[in-house]
Amino acid sequence: MVIVMAPEASSDNIDAVVELVAAAGGEAYVTRGVSRTIIGLVGDVERFEGLGLRALPGVSDVLRISAPYKLVSRENHVSRTVVSVAGVPIGGDGMTLIAGPCAVETPEQTLKAALMARSAGAALLRGGAYKPRTSPYAFQGLGEAGLRILADVRAETGLPIVTEVVDAADVELVASYADMLQVGTRNMQNFALLQAVGDAGRPVMLKRGMSSTIEEWLMAAEYIAQRGNLDIVLCERGIRTFEKATRNTLDISAVPVAQRLSHLPVIVDPSHSGGRRDLVLPLSRAAIAVGADGLIVDVHPHPETALCDGPQALVGEDLEELATLVRTLPNALGRVLTPAPEAVAMGV
Amino acid sequence: MVIVMAPEASSDNIDAVVELVAAAGGEAYVTRGVSRTIIGLVGDVERFEGLGLRALPGVSDVLRISAPYKLVSRENHVSRTVVSVAGVPIGGDGMTLIAGPCAVETPEQTLKAALMARSAGAALLRGGAYKPRTSPYAFQGLGEAGLRILADVRAETGLPIVTEVVDAADVELVASYADMLQVGTRNMQNFALLQAVGDAGRPVMLKRGMSSTIEEWLMAAEYIAQRGNLDIVLCERGIRTFEKATRNTLDISAVPVAQRLSHLPVIVDPSHSGGRRDLVLPLSRAAIAVGADGLIVDVHPHPETALCDGPQALVGEDLEELATLVRTLPNALGRVLTPAPEAVAMGV
Amino acid sequence: MVIVMAPEASSDNIDAVVELVAAAGGEAYVTRGVSRTIIGLVGDVERFEGLGLRALPGVSDVLRISAPYKLVSRENHVSRTVVSVAGVPIGGDGMTLIAGPCAVETPEQTLKAALMARSAGAALLRGGAYKPRTSPYAFQGLGEAGLRILADVRAETGLPIVTEVVDAADVELVASYADMLQVGTRNMQNFALLQAVGDAGRPVMLKRGMSSTIEEWLMAAEYIAQRGNLDIVLCERGIRTFEKATRNTLDISAVPVAQRLSHLPVIVDPSHSGGRRDLVLPLSRAAIAVGADGLIVDVHPHPETALCDGPQALVGEDLEELATLVRTLPNALGRVLTPAPEAVAMGV
Amino acid sequence: MVIVMAPEASSDNIDAVVELVAAAGGEAYVTRGVSRTIIGLVGDVERFEGLGLRALPGVSDVLRISAPYKLVSRENHVSRTVVSVAGVPIGGDGMTLIAGPCAVETPEQTLKAALMARSAGAALLRGGAYKPRTSPYAFQGLGEAGLRILADVRAETGLPIVTEVVDAADVELVASYADMLQVGTRNMQNFALLQAVGDAGRPVMLKRGMSSTIEEWLMAAEYIAQRGNLDIVLCERGIRTFEKATRNTLDISAVPVAQRLSHLPVIVDPSHSGGRRDLVLPLSRAAIAVGADGLIVDVHPHPETALCDGPQALVGEDLEELATLVRTLPNALGRVLTPAPEAVAMGV
Repeated sequence: MVIVMAPEASSDNIDAVVELVAAAGGEAYVTRGVSRTIIGLVGDVERFEGLGLRALPGVSDVLRISAPYKLVSRENHVSRTVVSVAGVPIGGDGMTLIAGPCAVETPEQTLKAALMARSAGAALLRGGAYKPRTSPYAFQGLGEAGLRILADVRAETGLPIVTEVVDAADVELVASYADMLQVGTRNMQNFALLQAVGDAGRPVMLKRGMSSTIEEWLMAAEYIAQRGNLDIVLCERGIRTFEKATRNTLDISAVPVAQRLSHLPVIVDPSHSGGRRDLVLPLSRAAIAVGADGLIVDVHPHPETALCDGPQALVGEDLEELATLVRTLPNALGRVLTPAPEAVAMGV
Repeated sequence: MVIVMAPEASSDNIDAVVELVAAAGGEAYVTRGVSRTIIGLVGDVERFEGLGLRALPGVSDVLRISAPYKLVSRENHVSRTVVSVAGVPIGGDGMTLIAGPCAVETPEQTLKAALMARSAGAALLRGGAYKPRTSPYAFQGLGEAGLRILADVRAETGLPIVTEVVDAADVELVASYADMLQVGTRNMQNFALLQAVGDAGRPVMLKRGMSSTIEEWLMAAEYIAQRGNLDIVLCERGIRTFEKATRNTLDISAVPVAQRLSHLPVIVDPSHSGGRRDLVLPLSRAAIAVGADGLIVDVHPHPETALCDGPQALVGEDLEELATLVRTLPNALGRVLTPAPEAVAMGV
Repeated sequence: MVIVMAPEASSDNIDAVVELVAAAGGEAYVTRGVSRTIIGLVGDVERFEGLGLRALPGVSDVLRISAPYKLVSRENHVSRTVVSVAGVPIGGDGMTLIAGPCAVETPEQTLKAALMARSAGAALLRGGAYKPRTSPYAFQGLGEAGLRILADVRAETGLPIVTEVVDAADVELVASYADMLQVGTRNMQNFALLQAVGDAGRPVMLKRGMSSTIEEWLMAAEYIAQRGNLDIVLCERGIRTFEKATRNTLDISAVPVAQRLSHLPVIVDPSHSGGRRDLVLPLSRAAIAVGADGLIVDVHPHPETALCDGPQALVGEDLEELATLVRTLPNALGRVLTPAPEAVAMGV
Repeated sequence: MVIVMAPEASSDNIDAVVELVAAAGGEAYVTRGVSRTIIGLVGDVERFEGLGLRALPGVSDVLRISAPYKLVSRENHVSRTVVSVAGVPIGGDGMTLIAGPCAVETPEQTLKAALMARSAGAALLRGGAYKPRTSPYAFQGLGEAGLRILADVRAETGLPIVTEVVDAADVELVASYADMLQVGTRNMQNFALLQAVGDAGRPVMLKRGMSSTIEEWLMAAEYIAQRGNLDIVLCERGIRTFEKATRNTLDISAVPVAQRLSHLPVIVDPSHSGGRRDLVLPLSRAAIAVGADGLIVDVHPHPETALCDGPQALVGEDLEELATLVRTLPNALGRVLTPAPEAVAMGV
């Protein structure tokens, strides 16, 4: 931590900083420049944060140097983590495709979407039973009935389930059906929920908040990790900017940046980033090329009647193109598509 | 709702839209322009939203015209609402000051801050017992012990309590102590929490999400209102932009814009907007002048040792200046400072 | 300047930084922390900037401490500047109203608008003869014919002229008519233009770039100041954010922040910030209350046929309300409306 | 164009709109909904824009439907354009690499950088002789001396030159040396400059403004096209957001979006987007994969002493990796690296 003193700071002001830091068990090193003095602190940064240094007379700025997250940081854990979801790995040399409908609507629709996903190369099935919707008048999901449909479809297709949980009170229930819990963009800083999924004994996919910095995203992951759960996959899904042509702006740089800062796998959601079907393929190509550890894509047998986000769901030719893409582009870049588990029932 | 067809849309494409709308019980009016056709829809917009119109062949854009919120909209409720918090009004001709410490730390600190708040003109006491913090290593609040401190201080000072709740599971407990429940910026789209506070039988202060549009903010209020609770106060607290000189950018225009769109009172948090003590007074003046129905301000007897947001808490001369400001500027603009309830104990 | 070394930086890496700084005539002070080393630099920051320190092995970050602008900084010039525009002061204890049409269209329209402006309390007349327009198909201004109209209207009303210049090649011509040159938001980083207006011998109003930080804005002012012209007025006119209810988001905090960092006067444009007539009055109140040194407001005798930005121009009752506002609110806050020069012709 | 009336609009209000439109030679089609009326306009949109419709009583909103740019729009020009720069094509099936130093510093540095660029696969040489810099104290470029260096290096290496012009007054001079003129991000809305390069008889590379929407970018291109110059290449170089880990946020979606809206080629600048050397390769991979028509990359023989943007310039192993990348990844995606012109001197 570095304290920058104001040009007009007195010697007494400087001494006061040094004494306060010393009293807190730290060491302070003073550098007097021509126009300003700076003070470098060595010791427990969390403790320094609580000292109210910014409010001391003569202090102009307080700069934090070391990463405020530890368990998810690559500083102390150089090798990249591979997260296993019911046996399906995310991370490492693989590129894992997760696909499925935005929302679970009926058993038929979910099964069809799962079969489409599987044949496109997906190793995991996504599908929402609890939907956080901006409007209280929009479809909110089927709840536990949706979870049961997902479980039935898993039994038929062999695809483990990734599904969202939106309330800490529901975590236990959702975890009893799901193979991986998803925390959505609107809940990235719902700390009660983060702690609950940290306790749930299931891998977690943590979507980036739509206006969160990468540092805040990693800090949210740290909340989960603190409960002893390090099976976390980060998902970049677009951030909010002034641009209106796309629903969000896919921050493609966030993938390599987060991979350098953290040992956790990072995947991309090309469907929600752009919010437009015609962008899903180009953005999927970009995500694979930038080095993402996976993709999560909306597919739907009948996008035109989907209860949620139909305009971005893949179907037909687009889906076939995705199937070709995930089987070829990763190879050209030294990675390989993660295979789906063997199918367990006659459905496949 | 208006459908904009692509220039290359065929007559069949247009007919398909018209038929789908008709099948859903709506009416579609077609206007053929030189380069494009537009179709105006009359009927149930929520139903139209579910039709997947954006995904139909030939459809270029779908524009929603009427406000997607109803209960909180001014369209159907022209007169402005006055919310009563244990007898203290927010809205109408008054300007209500809410003040107190960011976090409840000790009984002494809370009582001192409350007395400071009261003498500065506050009619309500703010103070956090549950603190949502970006870092899991930061102080998270005292929990129920903090609520008990707040209740004791209320008994001594007569100031009703505004306090934050961060988890739907805590709402009942917090509501048993608090006079007004606060939903913080990170939880503005925590829909389970919104519904829970909607059921709690207490007025709610809803902070704007740090990257939420005004429309999304009103939609979040609609979630609360849908549970039958219309005692909602909106609080603008700064939005996230590229500017780094301030913690957030106070969106001062949001006050008149929200007041025109909604009948709910709108207040401003000048402390968290700027994140700097030296900006609290100028931003408070701006908020009163723009027509805010109230202010919520951090005060602390010892900002330099505050466990949370010390750098922005008022004390000493700055607080005296605020006291003068809230007693004079509203008057110059035709409003009046809302008085505190009569004190109930010897403390005041 | 402070160099933050990476945790894995070697002693050689650290020595290399120290030697490079010493070779450039500076001094480097090393502080070795538990996990990282930081190095404080004393000497010529501009020279250090050219050393490519960020690219050295082991360097994690380079933090600049002192303000990169000097002539416009308050660090070396504590008292606030008052800029005189043909005898009309901006800054100090006054609050100066500048008003007029967005674009000069005809002699009649311009004279009517000027008389409206004067009677509303304006001491300076704004009006554009050169209009930077996003679309090449929009009205681009009358050019020199517009400047002649402005000069005639000045002769009749006594109001000095503020007008925009958009090309360095036009500066001499525009300066031969104008009393103050305006640099618009799209040209804030048109450095050739900044240097040209710095040489023009006229006061300059510098609008903030719509996505510029306050630091970049002051740096743009420094370009003008470097040419020996310190008669600069900063104008906050709204920044670009994700919010769609307003054309731009008025960054009201920018006024006190810029006033603390710089000695230059800071005014506000409430018309272009919101882009809506119904927001001009509330935003004007907020600007006066926050401590702005002036306002620049669009007025037009016939907004409904204005060739530019009619929807935000004041007329009729709104203008009367502004006239009352500027004569009362500054007084309540210890300032006074700057009077217009005495009229020189029969027109007033 | 669509007019949305307010719920409380009267029949007279509606009639007034219809009559105004009719008087301007347009047709207005009225659709009366349950709560609102909408009016579709057919005719000359530019003319409608000048009618001040937004300001009419009862008008709630005015929505523009057709693209406000025409010459650069794909609506009227379905096939994609290939721009030729002194015989080197940009667009079509090729992927063109442009590389070179951010700034021309010396003949030796420029020649070395050009040879590095050429051997990495570049077909065009970039290098700045006029540098727009945020600070007036930063290196501003060598001016015409820099242009002469570029011309000499072109003679030795055979690589045509892309160089920036920052002032309309310099366009003729720069065009006498350059093969392609670059308009930088800060000048994207410097309309005088756009018109001057439109007249210069040289292809133009137009960088996106750092906070410009894609629509505004295309409108800026329209300014150039209007002067009869359609040899325009669009360059995405990152936009300004709240994220601080990267200098800008590369808007990777802008490539396919702009390619759908316009027939002009679209390239990507991975160096200025991220501002970090370690991101240049991943972002280059993403750009090629998303379908960009080219890349423009900073290279420098001695990044550590570069006068401009050294931290992002490629050298050594990174550059070799880029050389491999541009020769392999485009092929895997059905494109081919555009070859450099044959070398004309002994230098290569």
